[in-house]
Amino acid sequence: MKEIDLSEIKSPADIRKMDLSEMTQLAAEMRSALMKKLSVHGGHVGPNLGMVEAIIALHYVFDTPQDKIVFDVSHQTYPHKMITGRMEAFTDPAHYDDVTGYTNPAESEYDLYSLGHTSSAVALAGGLAKARDMQGGNENVVAVIGDGSLSGGVAFEGLDYGATLKSNFIVVVNDNQMSIAENHGGIYEGLEKLRETNGEGEPNLFRAMGYDYRYVNYGNDLKSLIEAFRAVKDIDHPVVLHLNTMKGMGLPVAEANKEEFHFSGPFDLKTGAPLHEDEPQDAPEDYSELFGKGMLRRMKENNKVVAITAGTPGVLGFDKARREEAGRQFVDVGIAEQAGVDVASGMAKGGLRPVVGFVSSFLQRAYDQFSQDIALNRQPVTFVVFYGSMFGMNDETHLGFFDIALLSNIPDLLYLAPTCKEEFESMLDWSVGQTEVPVVIRTPGGMAVSNPEIKLLDDYSKPEYEVVRQGKDVALIGAGLMFGFMSQAADLLAKEGVNVTLINPRNLSALDTATLDTLKDYKTVVTAEDGIIDGGYGQKVASYLGEAPVKVINLGLPKEFLNRYDYSALQKKCGLTPGQIAQTVLDSLK
Amino acid sequence: MKEIDLSEIKSPADIRKMDLSEMTQLAAEMRSALMKKLSVHGGHVGPNLGMVEAIIALHYVFDTPQDKIVFDVSHQTYPHKMITGRMEAFTDPAHYDDVTGYTNPAESEYDLYSLGHTSSAVALAGGLAKARDMQGGNENVVAVIGDGSLSGGVAFEGLDYGATLKSNFIVVVNDNQMSIAENHGGIYEGLEKLRETNGEGEPNLFRAMGYDYRYVNYGNDLKSLIEAFRAVKDIDHPVVLHLNTMKGMGLPVAEANKEEFHFSGPFDLKTGAPLHEDEPQDAPEDYSELFGKGMLRRMKENNKVVAITAGTPGVLGFDKARREEAGRQFVDVGIAEQAGVDVASGMAKGGLRPVVGFVSSFLQRAYDQFSQDIALNRQPVTFVVFYGSMFGMNDETHLGFFDIALLSNIPDLLYLAPTCKEEFESMLDWSVGQTEVPVVIRTPGGMAVSNPEIKLLDDYSKPEYEVVRQGKDVALIGAGLMFGFMSQAADLLAKEGVNVTLINPRNLSALDTATLDTLKDYKTVVTAEDGIIDGGYGQKVASYLGEAPVKVINLGLPKEFLNRYDYSALQKKCGLTPGQIAQTVLDSLK
Repeated sequence: MKEIDLSEIKSPADIRKMDLSEMTQLAAEMRSALMKKLSVHGGHVGPNLGMVEAIIALHYVFDTPQDKIVFDVSHQTYPHKMITGRMEAFTDPAHYDDVTGYTNPAESEYDLYSLGHTSSAVALAGGLAKARDMQGGNENVVAVIGDGSLSGGVAFEGLDYGATLKSNFIVVVNDNQMSIAENHGGIYEGLEKLRETNGEGEPNLFRAMGYDYRYVNYGNDLKSLIEAFRAVKDIDHPVVLHLNTMKGMGLPVAEANKEEFHFSGPFDLKTGAPLHEDEPQDAPEDYSELFGKGMLRRMKENNKVVAITAGTPGVLGFDKARREEAGRQFVDVGIAEQAGVDVASGMAKGGLRPVVGFVSSFLQRAYDQFSQDIALNRQPVTFVVFYGSMFGMNDETHLGFFDIALLSNIPDLLYLAPTCKEEFESMLDWSVGQTEVPVVIRTPGGMAVSNPEIKLLDDYSKPEYEVVRQGKDVALIGAGLMFGFMSQAADLLAKEGVNVTLINPRNLSALDTATLDTLKDYKTVVTAEDGIIDGGYGQKVASYLGEAPVKVINLGLPKEFLNRYDYSALQKKCGLTPGQIAQTVLDSLK
Repeated sequence: MKEIDLSEIKSPADIRKMDLSEMTQLAAEMRSALMKKLSVHGGHVGPNLGMVEAIIALHYVFDTPQDKIVFDVSHQTYPHKMITGRMEAFTDPAHYDDVTGYTNPAESEYDLYSLGHTSSAVALAGGLAKARDMQGGNENVVAVIGDGSLSGGVAFEGLDYGATLKSNFIVVVNDNQMSIAENHGGIYEGLEKLRETNGEGEPNLFRAMGYDYRYVNYGNDLKSLIEAFRAVKDIDHPVVLHLNTMKGMGLPVAEANKEEFHFSGPFDLKTGAPLHEDEPQDAPEDYSELFGKGMLRRMKENNKVVAITAGTPGVLGFDKARREEAGRQFVDVGIAEQAGVDVASGMAKGGLRPVVGFVSSFLQRAYDQFSQDIALNRQPVTFVVFYGSMFGMNDETHLGFFDIALLSNIPDLLYLAPTCKEEFESMLDWSVGQTEVPVVIRTPGGMAVSNPEIKLLDDYSKPEYEVVRQGKDVALIGAGLMFGFMSQAADLLAKEGVNVTLINPRNLSALDTATLDTLKDYKTVVTAEDGIIDGGYGQKVASYLGEAPVKVINLGLPKEFLNRYDYSALQKKCGLTPGQIAQTVLDSLK
């Protein structure tokens, strides 16, 4: 078979000239390039390897960009990027970072949305189809959903709306039998039955929601895919095309270890072994590891303790072995954060001690449930937030610095920010042991700091600041991870002869007014938090001290969607290095 | 038939002694009492009249409170309250206000949750069932959902989880063929087909999600209901019981006008005519009326303008006649706020000019979509928030004072607070006419204030405060409805010889720093907003002016879930009457 020069694939037009054997060759070469890039660069491995053929076939059959494709969980769009003018970013290591890991309208007219949270593509496409119908257009509108995102509630809301369109509306369900971890739930059992009957069985979820339905059993076979897409192109009613694809297709280690290779850092292509340098034996642990290990211990001590996640068990430190060890004390509801919160609320009401783990960026998908079913109903569920930090994930769709503003302003919800691992364990022990208060504990990404000298409490329900160092005139209040920088700033200031009061606030949802009252006649109070300033912790302090003569300076992040930012550049931009904090204090004293 | 003394129904035990004819008589008398109360007191009319028999049968068959029932859209639980120790609140006008309009654990052990937002009962019950299974219990766990709430995404997330239980789990779907307005969407077409086939047709949505399924065609017939409930009691697997009920049952005007009688103020039992006193001809309009009327005009001027709601068209001023007039320019996605936001995002992307109307308390159900699919993707959708105010709805589940903290801290989302109807229309005209910025416009409940002297802008995208009155030393910044109280306070202060600067900030999501800079050497700046102080507008001002010598005082509401509060008592408690504001200023100047 003739080799294809990938660099000559500039747009889908170049694919539309190919015959099937050329496309087959193209798929093989694209998969090869993907594996090479992923193995040295890292990224979403399994989802992209599984979608190579489907994406080639989509662009071959549909007249993109006139025909519109909205990709859900757009982390499965690397092949789409390759054939829509961004091949170099997958073939030339010098350009590997030219593209983001998600669709991005700033990169290409073929990308309709910047979309990193899941489950919304169907509803978004529904709006596009309605706009087409009202304006007399005739383009195809396609939503591509799957890789576990079908369980998110908004997917059903979107399907419900889409069924009303009575016009061209094509929903492609990429059924790779996995969420990030294995799929759970009635929806996925239904999909399994459809696969088993070659799509011919009843009950059929999609028909039940008003859709025509087609099944493609060989979802990695170009010929089957092209036929199936051709059959629905220009269709005049809503249809679901159910593709049975293979996550990790073509890479044996990824086919065999679908969860581990959903997303991976650099790895050895043959063995799958991670390529990062060996960690020293005494390397500190991150909060995922601390949580997973610590929760197994707590589960053994108390058989009412249950850990819950919504599709991201790895983030909680629960790999397959730990999930098996936890048994029925571990529940993954799939990508369904709202249910994750509500199921935990029901468990708490029923006498269990549920602990829910969420990535910071995703917890906002369940705000209403936090507010209504946890806080208003005072259910003593513990939530642990992971990557709640400027030092967390840095894609614009996965930012970890909005959660303080989001959760700390809900009444009756306690929001705690441990400054080190000892404090984290203490807060978690207290929370799991009590049955009165809904609690959220926020952890950053990266390795957990240790501070054996931290003063721990028996009860974290009331705001009680730790005055770690007593100075005068100036107070530094450092929340969570920021405490470390504030502490270093205090050291720098001491060298300048300025002895400051250093405070760990512990609690971001209520103020320790007794301690704050002692600061009213200070010259300067500086707060620092690992999140946006707007709506956050520091502004509560500024408001409380608004009538006092003391100057209040709030440090934190600007209210902006940042994308793939450099961590230390951002820290500097925000004035959050110890040196900058010390200088800010000195300036304020002038 | 022997009359039943309702006052002797103290608990479900009193029902369990009855035979069918007695229960039939009981249902008739309960319905009678309900109609009487509703006609003089107002409340959720249709949903409760439709559920009398089902609720009697539930308590007759199941051993409540050991067996657990979680009621979704718990506004349909008046009959449940009647037979669980709270009859007097429905038979004695002096006690009509003893109970809330929703289930409430503070009232009764039969009420598991305070639940006023919809769609979460299945997931909550799923957690209860899991807790039972882990602790070796054998009680039945029942979720009652319906009255349109099945379309909310979390209902599907809950169904998906519930199917994994493989133990007793009973989901009762109250299918009254209505949301608040008529139902829309593929789900409801599926239910219709099931009704048409007496539950025997395929595809069956619930079977497709892994549930056993039973259908009760006569959902207001006690005998059928009792048989159906008995058949699933102590079942060992998840089952859906689909009840075909009649919304408004027994009250002809409510049966005939299901939407109008979903919720109603006092009305004439015979004619259905509202009983409130005639409004004077020149009565001011509320924002619903202004919106509905104004949007129809905008739709005629521009056929790309579309109004969207999620199940509450009446709140937007779109009664049936207006919806018909709007035709395809009006879209109700049903109770599915997430889809409401995303469909609008897709429409904007596709070139339409969508305007979404939400009740303040419900918009939080779509936070993730506001953040990701609107703000991050900068889709120029206009949102109008209704009842965003302390003078809005006052049930603890329906509070309207959390939305500033919620939405104003999302980057790239413009949050505007008009102070009067002229400003509202101007902001809405600007927003509908531009295609760059996602905009939220916040309106309070009650009649719209008029202020013909307001200074309007051609462009509201940048923060630009209106200095309505120039004084010195003291500035009052009054957001939205609070502007009026601040203005009156300014008058009071002028009488005391204090001439203050009075400011309408217009914009709650960004600061007009140029104007704020002019206040740095003032003695006092007071902000007032119609929402919680924490995370809100005033704290941004306090933070910005934190280093300046000026005192900053933030007025607003405490971060608390309040329930059925008295509006003026709350205003006083918060120091928000004009007299109190003036006094606060005078005190600060001492």
